[in-house]
Amino acid sequence: MNRRQIFQQVSFNGEGLIPVIAQDADNGDVLMMAWMNEESLAATIAEQRAVYWSRSRRKLWRKGEQSGNTQWVREIHLDCDGDAMLLKVEQQGGIACHTGRRSCFFRKLTGERWQIAGETTGSPSESCGNGGE
Amino acid sequence: MNRRQIFQQVSFNGEGLIPVIAQDADNGDVLMMAWMNEESLAATIAEQRAVYWSRSRRKLWRKGEQSGNTQWVREIHLDCDGDAMLLKVEQQGGIACHTGRRSCFFRKLTGERWQIAGETTGSPSESCGNGGE
Repeated sequence: MNRRQIFQQVSFNGEGLIPVIAQDADNGDVLMMAWMNEESLAATIAEQRAVYWSRSRRKLWRKGEQSGNTQWVREIHLDCDGDAMLLKVEQQGGIACHTGRRSCFFRKLTGERWQIAGETTGSPSESCGNGGE
Repeated sequence: MNRRQIFQQVSFNGEGLIPVIAQDADNGDVLMMAWMNEESLAATIAEQRAVYWSRSRRKLWRKGEQSGNTQWVREIHLDCDGDAMLLKVEQQGGIACHTGRRSCFFRKLTGERWQIAGETTGSPSESCGNGGE
């Protein structure tokens, strides 16, 4: 991999991280948002599956490694100013969230409260975003 | 607005910010990612249009205020651990990016380089993410 050519346009923040959105490549659902550092981006590209950086555990987090809900990467996009990324993924098992829901964004503002919208379809597993298991 | 009831589940980071994804409510395209603080989230809810926090200008950024490309908010979602939000928006003018493209995520990793995928359909205006105009 010509890492330099790829990485020179990616703008990591002061902590060496970039926010990454995972979107279901089939139906367009936004599944979750997590973070990557250089090492996890390199692993994502090499393995063609989402490898995030767990900020709580301070280690690489191969999404689905324990739950089986791997995100196979179809496309990787970078935004105009290089400080956010979008993965279009094939969500194995159809479940991205540790609560067993398809998407982590299952709370919807309804009037003045956050209403739980998504149904639980699987078993709780990895923690959203932070990769705690 | 019962601000306390809404805000107690939102987890702002050490800088008082939360990352926010804007998604086209009609076709599911992920348009951009930006940031909100408490004040901009309150304004977004009150005005039902996306009001971000510009980190570069350190002020509220009413998306489209200068370009006309306002994002009218249809739904506001919060993720499972409360530290990321998703707006489903009606993108006025169909253009979210300051480069004149529909989405800010127009660079796609192809082989070992970022290939520009989106066509320019409008005039350059606000800067993505940072709200510089």
